[in-house]
Amino acid sequence: MAGTTTAATPLLKDELDIVIPTIRNLDFLEMWRPFFEPYHLIIVQDGDPSKVIKVPDGFDYELYNRNDINRIMGPRSSCISFKDSACRCFGYMVSKKKYIFTIDDDCFVAKDPSGKQINALEQHIKNLLCPSTPFFFNTLYDPFREGADFVRGYPFSLREGVPTAVSHGLWLNIPDYDAPTQLVKPLERNQRYVDMVLTIPKGTLFPMCGMNLAFDRELIGPAMYFGLMGDGQPIGRYDDMWAGWCVKVICDHLGLGVKTGLPYIWHSKASNPFVNLRKEYKGIFWQEEIIPFFQAAVLPKDCTTVQKCYIELSKQVKDKLGKVDPYFDKLADAMVTWIEAWDELNPAGASDQLPNGKA
Amino acid sequence: MAGTTTAATPLLKDELDIVIPTIRNLDFLEMWRPFFEPYHLIIVQDGDPSKVIKVPDGFDYELYNRNDINRIMGPRSSCISFKDSACRCFGYMVSKKKYIFTIDDDCFVAKDPSGKQINALEQHIKNLLCPSTPFFFNTLYDPFREGADFVRGYPFSLREGVPTAVSHGLWLNIPDYDAPTQLVKPLERNQRYVDMVLTIPKGTLFPMCGMNLAFDRELIGPAMYFGLMGDGQPIGRYDDMWAGWCVKVICDHLGLGVKTGLPYIWHSKASNPFVNLRKEYKGIFWQEEIIPFFQAAVLPKDCTTVQKCYIELSKQVKDKLGKVDPYFDKLADAMVTWIEAWDELNPAGASDQLPNGKA
Repeated sequence: MAGTTTAATPLLKDELDIVIPTIRNLDFLEMWRPFFEPYHLIIVQDGDPSKVIKVPDGFDYELYNRNDINRIMGPRSSCISFKDSACRCFGYMVSKKKYIFTIDDDCFVAKDPSGKQINALEQHIKNLLCPSTPFFFNTLYDPFREGADFVRGYPFSLREGVPTAVSHGLWLNIPDYDAPTQLVKPLERNQRYVDMVLTIPKGTLFPMCGMNLAFDRELIGPAMYFGLMGDGQPIGRYDDMWAGWCVKVICDHLGLGVKTGLPYIWHSKASNPFVNLRKEYKGIFWQEEIIPFFQAAVLPKDCTTVQKCYIELSKQVKDKLGKVDPYFDKLADAMVTWIEAWDELNPAGASDQLPNGKA
Repeated sequence: MAGTTTAATPLLKDELDIVIPTIRNLDFLEMWRPFFEPYHLIIVQDGDPSKVIKVPDGFDYELYNRNDINRIMGPRSSCISFKDSACRCFGYMVSKKKYIFTIDDDCFVAKDPSGKQINALEQHIKNLLCPSTPFFFNTLYDPFREGADFVRGYPFSLREGVPTAVSHGLWLNIPDYDAPTQLVKPLERNQRYVDMVLTIPKGTLFPMCGMNLAFDRELIGPAMYFGLMGDGQPIGRYDDMWAGWCVKVICDHLGLGVKTGLPYIWHSKASNPFVNLRKEYKGIFWQEEIIPFFQAAVLPKDCTTVQKCYIELSKQVKDKLGKVDPYFDKLADAMVTWIEAWDELNPAGASDQLPNGKA
């Protein structure tokens, strides 16, 4: 029966890594200290490797800069973005844990309407440990939450749900707008705390933001590639979007769930809309073709692992989006390189399993 | 641009009827008086026509009992349920207004978290007058709401949205559970006020509850048939569900939107779970076949009006669900009768128009 669990949420401290792309602001770690200190941090430095990031005492962390990425991946490091926070996906690859939580360094602890600090990580863990319900919409949203359930008319055969692969959290204060919207509405702030988690239905794509995101590495890790962005690339700020579109198509194919909603973090500052516009403008054109491409993408039945799905998707990207711009040829090749590197660094074990965790 | 309208919501008092299936409790109207008095009420009495419903002074209403339905519809009145609140759809048919709001007589005015009484009708009107966004999920939910917009990665070509046909409101206090869930969780109350409206994505079905529901009659009215329930029929409590499944398939086909979320009403009392179980138990079996049927239903391109879609759907019901139980043969015939009656009572005008309101 749904909605009856009142047990405490497990910490999962030996099963979860926190991946952070650079830390420019050390207040960030101090603010999160009570929540992050039990966990292992993986910091992936996106810029000049000679710069030193000073991590305050008490945190258990490993830090990778560009030199480390090059050394560990060799020529395959070409698939990891340079001078862009998209490099964070290197952290997903080198983690040995089942779960990943990734957060930006301008995201602080938010407060709920009662004024209580929100433990974002705890809510992500709740989301990931509860099933998703992608095949039919529940009008009271997450049926597994305390005080809720499936409503009248919800087929009983669908109430078991499916494993949750992704938990997408939201942002109070500065909303995640594109450059044109930022320019037009510079003063808009997100002040609405929506007390809800829902499964994004099967067949529906969404804009996945990497600011406050958790996922099950064993279920979906190899699809969490943040693409080629930043230095030497024609676009930026589409790293998380690209990952989200690939992830959702693959989750739909493999029968995995994606949730969005709680938890909120406090997004402290808007990035520069003029800089963002330069990074985004090609993406704003391209997404008009990318979205229909992903909406129409069908994966064959023999794609039974995330890796197989991702390689198949890379072929379709080359075939269908290569015409849009040569960038997509390069991206399709990088997708293959990413999987090769993933499998090299994560031999056997998890990647040989079916996504539902059965051998 | 989305999310910038701060104009007052229009009352639409000459364009909206409130349809109520019987009124057993006159406190109901007194409680809603400040909100309902400007509107015309259509009361459809579901039981013994000799019983008199005393409507308090000050309300503008028309009341139909079974004798009226038989007189107005003649032999076609067979498609209107008897001794069941499903008869309310007769009110949708005889209304001459563009919008309908329907509510049960055990639904009272709810309060928002600040303690303010919620004007449910005003929120429904807001929902219906704002576009829907069924083709891509917006992680800040309704982008047309004040303080919100489309987020980064939302294709610009989809930001115009589509006309909204249905606004599905929710219930605080007694949740809309089926009999088995009622029996297992008799004390559960919905106490979570989720401050949100969202578009149910294209291709996703949902359990539409008729307790607190508004729709655009011109856009979707002929599909709002509440089926054959109650007296002489093998099931009950599937009237709104049936309508919801038909409506969603047709909205998806015609490019119309369905929203759910706000507004809340206060659902005062749970119906008897033992009685409900008797009404529902065949439905609980059947919905396991009905849902895959509607999920797979495809309407041909030449179905350009709601009526054409509905007639086509009735054929598919007969063809595919007739095997499940002879009840569906009867229901398929009743669907055709309903459309014939609708067109007779609503000649020309609205029904000849395309659903987007263009001639």
